[in-house]
Amino acid sequence: MPSPLDRRACLLITCRDGPGIVAAATSFLFARGANVTDLQQHSTDPDGGTFFMRLEFVLPEPSPEPAELSARFQAEVAERFGMQWRLRHFRDRRRFAVLVSTEDHALLELLWGWKRGELAAEPALVVGNHPDLRSAVEWFGVPFEHVPIGPEGMAPAEARLLELLEGRADLLVLARYMRVLSEGFVRRFPSRIINIHHSFLPAFLGAEPYRQAHERGVKLVGATAHYVVADLDAGPIIEQDVTRVSHRQSVADLKALGRALERQVLARAVKLHLEERILVHGNKTVVFG
Amino acid sequence: MPSPLDRRACLLITCRDGPGIVAAATSFLFARGANVTDLQQHSTDPDGGTFFMRLEFVLPEPSPEPAELSARFQAEVAERFGMQWRLRHFRDRRRFAVLVSTEDHALLELLWGWKRGELAAEPALVVGNHPDLRSAVEWFGVPFEHVPIGPEGMAPAEARLLELLEGRADLLVLARYMRVLSEGFVRRFPSRIINIHHSFLPAFLGAEPYRQAHERGVKLVGATAHYVVADLDAGPIIEQDVTRVSHRQSVADLKALGRALERQVLARAVKLHLEERILVHGNKTVVFG
Amino acid sequence: MPSPLDRRACLLITCRDGPGIVAAATSFLFARGANVTDLQQHSTDPDGGTFFMRLEFVLPEPSPEPAELSARFQAEVAERFGMQWRLRHFRDRRRFAVLVSTEDHALLELLWGWKRGELAAEPALVVGNHPDLRSAVEWFGVPFEHVPIGPEGMAPAEARLLELLEGRADLLVLARYMRVLSEGFVRRFPSRIINIHHSFLPAFLGAEPYRQAHERGVKLVGATAHYVVADLDAGPIIEQDVTRVSHRQSVADLKALGRALERQVLARAVKLHLEERILVHGNKTVVFG
Amino acid sequence: MPSPLDRRACLLITCRDGPGIVAAATSFLFARGANVTDLQQHSTDPDGGTFFMRLEFVLPEPSPEPAELSARFQAEVAERFGMQWRLRHFRDRRRFAVLVSTEDHALLELLWGWKRGELAAEPALVVGNHPDLRSAVEWFGVPFEHVPIGPEGMAPAEARLLELLEGRADLLVLARYMRVLSEGFVRRFPSRIINIHHSFLPAFLGAEPYRQAHERGVKLVGATAHYVVADLDAGPIIEQDVTRVSHRQSVADLKALGRALERQVLARAVKLHLEERILVHGNKTVVFG
Repeated sequence: MPSPLDRRACLLITCRDGPGIVAAATSFLFARGANVTDLQQHSTDPDGGTFFMRLEFVLPEPSPEPAELSARFQAEVAERFGMQWRLRHFRDRRRFAVLVSTEDHALLELLWGWKRGELAAEPALVVGNHPDLRSAVEWFGVPFEHVPIGPEGMAPAEARLLELLEGRADLLVLARYMRVLSEGFVRRFPSRIINIHHSFLPAFLGAEPYRQAHERGVKLVGATAHYVVADLDAGPIIEQDVTRVSHRQSVADLKALGRALERQVLARAVKLHLEERILVHGNKTVVFG
Repeated sequence: MPSPLDRRACLLITCRDGPGIVAAATSFLFARGANVTDLQQHSTDPDGGTFFMRLEFVLPEPSPEPAELSARFQAEVAERFGMQWRLRHFRDRRRFAVLVSTEDHALLELLWGWKRGELAAEPALVVGNHPDLRSAVEWFGVPFEHVPIGPEGMAPAEARLLELLEGRADLLVLARYMRVLSEGFVRRFPSRIINIHHSFLPAFLGAEPYRQAHERGVKLVGATAHYVVADLDAGPIIEQDVTRVSHRQSVADLKALGRALERQVLARAVKLHLEERILVHGNKTVVFG
Repeated sequence: MPSPLDRRACLLITCRDGPGIVAAATSFLFARGANVTDLQQHSTDPDGGTFFMRLEFVLPEPSPEPAELSARFQAEVAERFGMQWRLRHFRDRRRFAVLVSTEDHALLELLWGWKRGELAAEPALVVGNHPDLRSAVEWFGVPFEHVPIGPEGMAPAEARLLELLEGRADLLVLARYMRVLSEGFVRRFPSRIINIHHSFLPAFLGAEPYRQAHERGVKLVGATAHYVVADLDAGPIIEQDVTRVSHRQSVADLKALGRALERQVLARAVKLHLEERILVHGNKTVVFG
Repeated sequence: MPSPLDRRACLLITCRDGPGIVAAATSFLFARGANVTDLQQHSTDPDGGTFFMRLEFVLPEPSPEPAELSARFQAEVAERFGMQWRLRHFRDRRRFAVLVSTEDHALLELLWGWKRGELAAEPALVVGNHPDLRSAVEWFGVPFEHVPIGPEGMAPAEARLLELLEGRADLLVLARYMRVLSEGFVRRFPSRIINIHHSFLPAFLGAEPYRQAHERGVKLVGATAHYVVADLDAGPIIEQDVTRVSHRQSVADLKALGRALERQVLARAVKLHLEERILVHGNKTVVFG
């Protein structure tokens, strides 16, 4: 008999706001014997705004078939309100891939978090455009693939990436991957690529943000995790944080402080994504923390 | 015709967890034409735990009579689930009283916040056991009463306080009121007296917490806003915060830093209370921020 | 006989780095019987970098004449190292003026801090381009002047400001003064005008930063206190801070959260300036906190 | 010829306060051709307080012999003022040992930081009372020793520890080592054992602080790094930090959040110690950050 953990699921809904949405969704679940354990809802405006909801619930034993539950929800609730929605059963573990270059800190934070059981997902593989991190990755029993970027640029590398990722990963994490993915590649993974930018966006766009921060003499440096869209550094922000600095810190010191920040911010963003806590709406995120 | 703001209300529910609670409450509201605009729910445990929910909604125009709405909710929903609940219409402004001694910072933060429209309530009066803050209070057009504490102790002062507060205030805020209220007095205002303690509770209980903090050499000092219960410093914590300190700070410096912290933490706690975002459960709070 | 507080002074030094500077400055003070109580020093680079030092000390009783002490320091130490330096006796209280428009929060934080004895200076006057804050200011016993900005623009208003400030204030604080001072005016007060900008600079330059922040969907909003230079929003940053926000906050909510941040950040910056803890170097500050 | 890095050194001084100490120390260094690059000084009270100073400097080329420099400083400066002092040449790398049980997070933070070049020291060995972390440690090329604690208690284990540490480590880090070292053992390493306690000391002393924090309903949980003294949890605090929590977090969630905090706080404390930034005075620390 499945444990309660195996019967946990969650439902995420976005639609035009109006009366009766919460009642319809929760009544549907109640009629199937599900017990709502966590519900968060947000409306941008009660008159004609957008409605967002995340429902976590435990299904009864025996549970309805996932496919049938989805079909019925679409027919009985979603259509009426014109919902965009997704339903996820937590026993279906997510798989993610990580893209890296030579810096290990953001990658290792994810792998150690996974090893400690803090991530509700499995690392399917790590791909590096340099081979440097192979040994660190393989120590965890995770496959490492070296996909160099040659003189032909990103196109052949991206083709190889697509082969490697096909059917293996739901989420792509750029853990200080120092290359820009093409617009075509990015469009294949909408709200499914997370990047860590080493500044408090939108300050210090572009290259060498710590150098820019040092030159401007800011008193805080930051890091930003965001979904990747075609326009670099402009994707929906998932999580940000900052740390205090002073005139004492050199650019190298800012980078070291920044590494601690980057890995925490990225790990928190990945965890929020994997726990299905993020709804993307235009260029913004609703995060049900 | 009432503006949408006048038709906003909120419902807070605590009961034994079980299936169907959210559906029942939201279906009830839907049937009265109310539109849920913000819903937060929490369960301590899906099997036999405690269920907490805060629902914010806009009533239709014309709105149902408050008394009738309450009676029907009790009959149709609350009884079935054994709910403890409260319903509040935001157009019924709350009134609060503040108790002070000689220090003004926590009081002024509240009064300036109110004057700027940041508090959904009116200050009914300020009572001081010293007369020092009369002029500052009266500048705001708020009544000030001097209730000294004489050699007979708290009993006559508390009797006078009860007279002054009778029918005038829903909430009593201790803004650095340096006296201990009696158990009998406290019991008359369950979860309706908020105190600011000048330490990160439960560290540094009792007197002179900044001196204790200085002696222990901590690297952060804190402040804690909590509901007052008979056992001093032991009431349910509403909000806390800390600020970084070093060996450079004297006890006087810690007090000055602490004042900034105390007034912010108290103001946040009072705002959370007035917006009906707090459910007390045993010795803890559920805060729907 | 003057109290030790009356004999406290501080010396700030900037010069090209090289051996012997600390020894020369501290030996000079020692020879006059002064006792160094706090010393902070920073070099950008030991080889040819810039040297910064702040020395706090207590002069003996009887103390040397300030003018003579300065003349001797110049002759015996400063000339040899090509120092830029300033010496301040804390018994000479600083006086500051505040420029405001209609918002009171940043102003009141300063005035209440002063009233509590937290600022080592006196508010000489407050000037508003609107009359709204007269009563609040006069309650503190501080003069308020209304200097409106008419169709002729800033020139006549700035001329009037110069008359009012002449000989009365060492520091000009822009506490949400919503007008841009002319380049000519600004140049008369180098490193002596402090502004509070309602964003985490350099993010969200220009108008309506909270609206910009809301549109970008950031997870933190900030405030920045900086010295005013001719190029708006580009002056040396003194202090910054941020606060966490989420999708729940409207633009109005961000403004309310921002007000709490702005007044704290501005008050900290003004306090650092008045305690002579800031050395400006190019477009950056060295802050000896 | 040694690089400037090889000629960097630092001097830490504690003594009774009085005039002329800074001048004497810096004049001594100037006379030997050293260039002071960072100086921080603190006095608890100008009249009869305690004086603390940290001086970082670059020695000339050729440099004076370390032993001779020390002997002369003692004779020419330290004796006169009754100083406790230490001089360290940064080219003499420090070595540290880590004691662990089964949890890896605090240990790995240190080892990865070291591998990235963020720690000015070498990990000499890791000792576990369980063998679980051997593979993780050896992956870094660092020796791992298993010293189990048998029915005879700590005495034989401590004897074995002393053998292992003899001549190999200047600092002992307890990275979630879940055993209490004896008073005799602790006294051999004054201000040379750093522990991470999983609470904001002095709140939640003793066992299971996260469970205590959950029961008390605090809104922040913390971690504290401190030097170990005979009285458990009472040693001088080096560094502390907190993270925000709410009613949503279970005890297990608090532990997971706490792990992130513990490892950061411990790593910062170890770094401060290794960079010679800490002076212990009674039960407190002066940290020149």
